Amino acid sequence: SPTDRELRPAVGNRVSVVLGAQWGDEGKGKVVDLLAQDADMVCRCQGGNNAGHTVVVDSVEYDFHLLPSGIINPKVTAFIGNGVVIHLPGLFEEAEKNERKGKGLKDWEKRLIISDRAHIGTAKTRASRQEGIGPVYSAKAARSGLRICDLLADFTTFSERYKVLAHQYKAMYPTLVIDIEGELLRLKEYVSRVKPMVRDGVHYMYEALHGPPKTILVEGANAALLDIDFGTYPFVTSSNCTVGGVCTGLGMPPQNVGEVYGVVKAYTTRTRGKEVGVTTGRKRRCGWLDLVLIKYAHMINGFTAIALTKLDILDMFEEIKVGVSYKVDNQTIPTFPANQEVLQHVDVQYETLPGWKSDISQVRSFEDLPENARKYTLKLTWPHQLPV
Amino acid sequence: SPTDRELRPAVGNRVSVVLGAQWGDEGKGKVVDLLAQDADMVCRCQGGNNAGHTVVVDSVEYDFHLLPSGIINPKVTAFIGNGVVIHLPGLFEEAEKNERKGKGLKDWEKRLIISDRAHIGTAKTRASRQEGIGPVYSAKAARSGLRICDLLADFTTFSERYKVLAHQYKAMYPTLVIDIEGELLRLKEYVSRVKPMVRDGVHYMYEALHGPPKTILVEGANAALLDIDFGTYPFVTSSNCTVGGVCTGLGMPPQNVGEVYGVVKAYTTRTRGKEVGVTTGRKRRCGWLDLVLIKYAHMINGFTAIALTKLDILDMFEEIKVGVSYKVDNQTIPTFPANQEVLQHVDVQYETLPGWKSDISQVRSFEDLPENARKYTLKLTWPHQLPV
Ligand SMILES: Nc1nc2c(ncn2[C@@H]2O[C@H](COP(=O)(O)OP(=O)(O)O)[C@@H](O)[C@H]2O)c(=O)[nH]1
Ligand SMILES: Nc1nc2c(ncn2[C@@H]2O[C@H](COP(=O)(O)OP(=O)(O)O)[C@@H](O)[C@H]2O)c(=O)[nH]1
Repeated sequence: SPTDRELRPAVGNRVSVVLGAQWGDEGKGKVVDLLAQDADMVCRCQGGNNAGHTVVVDSVEYDFHLLPSGIINPKVTAFIGNGVVIHLPGLFEEAEKNERKGKGLKDWEKRLIISDRAHIGTAKTRASRQEGIGPVYSAKAARSGLRICDLLADFTTFSERYKVLAHQYKAMYPTLVIDIEGELLRLKEYVSRVKPMVRDGVHYMYEALHGPPKTILVEGANAALLDIDFGTYPFVTSSNCTVGGVCTGLGMPPQNVGEVYGVVKAYTTRTRGKEVGVTTGRKRRCGWLDLVLIKYAHMINGFTAIALTKLDILDMFEEIKVGVSYKVDNQTIPTFPANQEVLQHVDVQYETLPGWKSDISQVRSFEDLPENARKYTLKLTWPHQLPV
Repeated sequence: SPTDRELRPAVGNRVSVVLGAQWGDEGKGKVVDLLAQDADMVCRCQGGNNAGHTVVVDSVEYDFHLLPSGIINPKVTAFIGNGVVIHLPGLFEEAEKNERKGKGLKDWEKRLIISDRAHIGTAKTRASRQEGIGPVYSAKAARSGLRICDLLADFTTFSERYKVLAHQYKAMYPTLVIDIEGELLRLKEYVSRVKPMVRDGVHYMYEALHGPPKTILVEGANAALLDIDFGTYPFVTSSNCTVGGVCTGLGMPPQNVGEVYGVVKAYTTRTRGKEVGVTTGRKRRCGWLDLVLIKYAHMINGFTAIALTKLDILDMFEEIKVGVSYKVDNQTIPTFPANQEVLQHVDVQYETLPGWKSDISQVRSFEDLPENARKYTLKLTWPHQLPV
């Protein structure tokens, strides 16, 4: 009824989201860089400094791990949401290193906002290839975690809780070495510098969504197949890197999620350590683009567009294969298997397409691609009819 | 452009979501029961058997903890998503106990679908007031968790991993007692019974959203202030019980979230144990409805409607107060504080309204409420103009 609609609040601004559709390393940085040029605000909602990409501006190569890479646009305000794990010394190191490289990071301290509900990371550990992110998310779920708001409150209380937490980490990961007193000293030093950046993240996000029109971008870190719920568990990261992580990691409703860009690399690799590639049996499938997997990522994320990257890597092939379905024990299965042992026994069914055998690295539009490259690209839109 | 829109896939069915806006015990069961009468499918997306409500149908009192309570409608298919922690012996006990009570649970085994990506819960533990849910979510984040799909694969592999996991639980919670061999025996017994219920949850949800029109309801367990990210940490549950948990816990995109009902109890209590109420200082505020907190829950969840429950509890009061703002050190603060120490020092500012001093327990429509009760109800819609 019209009365209902009058009473209903306006939805407000909608955020655009960039997500990896495979196992990371899809080239999200390139897509973010493009979109960040029109953005007012760029957000990170999950992960920690285990993510990473490189952005080149004016021949300067910037390296990002925890900072939203969109911060190199001097008009952008960067926001790190509650879902992110923040290792403060690492954050300052990363920012200062980039600041020395070029003018992209100018005034970054004034342009960075941090949620007071974000959990505090530990220093790099030897126990986890994920730079200590996993243990922090685990402690968060166990409700022994410490957050930025705790650091800014009474430091004596914080120190006591930090020591308890550090001992819990050691109980969980016996090989772990934490310099407790050293870390506490470093954290104390950062209190006054970080304080001006810290806000109630829920309130900050609400104001951004319901104030004047704003272009807001969310940079996904990691990727769909690394998601704690939907990835190839246990070879995953400890947070939700699918679209739901945008809501839980920033504190905003689904109504405010607008475009969802799925970044797809034209071929498949698993990058998070050799043992993983081997254990998940990716080696066998490594190489060709796997459409079953992309469709799976799309079911979860509802991509409104796909960005295909690194197509030029396939320039020299006579023939290019595309994985189109999975068989287990000679039966086609309709799904992407959850269990690792089943996944290892999957027989990928391929379609073969002719290669384009020419250098496309300078091509900038779909129309200028060779016909065979265009056909390959369209394969990706076939199962779910998406604008590319 | 119209071409874009043609290529864009139809959004599909939208789910309705019922969420608690305070600390649980809001009477979500009543709202779910009402909405489930028209539903084809009712889902749980997070939590475990730490939740619970009572539904009375034909004078029979059913007790739900892990099962979606909508399952008492014999036309409903119930779905337990990947975000839920499932203790299988507990699930079967709960279902069979309810089955003996009345005909509501008829054919429940045929009407229950379980995601193969849901994690497996341990038996009740003494270490956690949350019936062993916390340790499971913590192990999930640490990537040592076991899922339903692992139970259904090779049982020898499962048993080995189960033993490792049980020892990790004990390392984390030294007082914990787990009967490893006994639990394994019980789990093995359930394999054949649970197998027909198990599906790839992502694929199942996608088909439900993109098949014929369906009325789908999601039953939130716990509540906003118990959310692992947004609740009064550390006095929270270990999952996301705000709306983002619907996406991460079922594997569905934000576009498919439709109505979001916020269930608000007309007064405030914290129900999760006495120590919590004391520690968070809720005691001082206990009693009156707190609008600051409801608005905070709304910012995160984007409620499209509010259901106010238990208004009759206020029937006998001369005057009724409503918390409208917070002061800390005599300064009005615009937010709901994240840090517990700050929260304890909050001075709630109240508005006083006249009571209605009559029995409204039989009233069924807004128009039939006494004028003062209508005025009270409208207080709730004031800060954010929602249809009630
Ligand atoms: N050849 C080629 N390399 C690319 C392309 N897009 C990105 N890359 C490179 O791929 C690597 C990973 O990209 P990055 O954005 O860090 O991946 P992320 O993990 O998804 O953020 C970087 O070294 C990029 O320079 C492309 O279209 N072609
Ligand atoms: N007096 C009164 N009690 C109610 C009302 N709605 C629900 N309840 C009771 O409140 C208790 C908690 O409700 P429940 O649905 O279990 O809470 P949940 O934790 O939000 O699911 C139950 O005993 C209900 O019978 C109401 O409008 N008035």
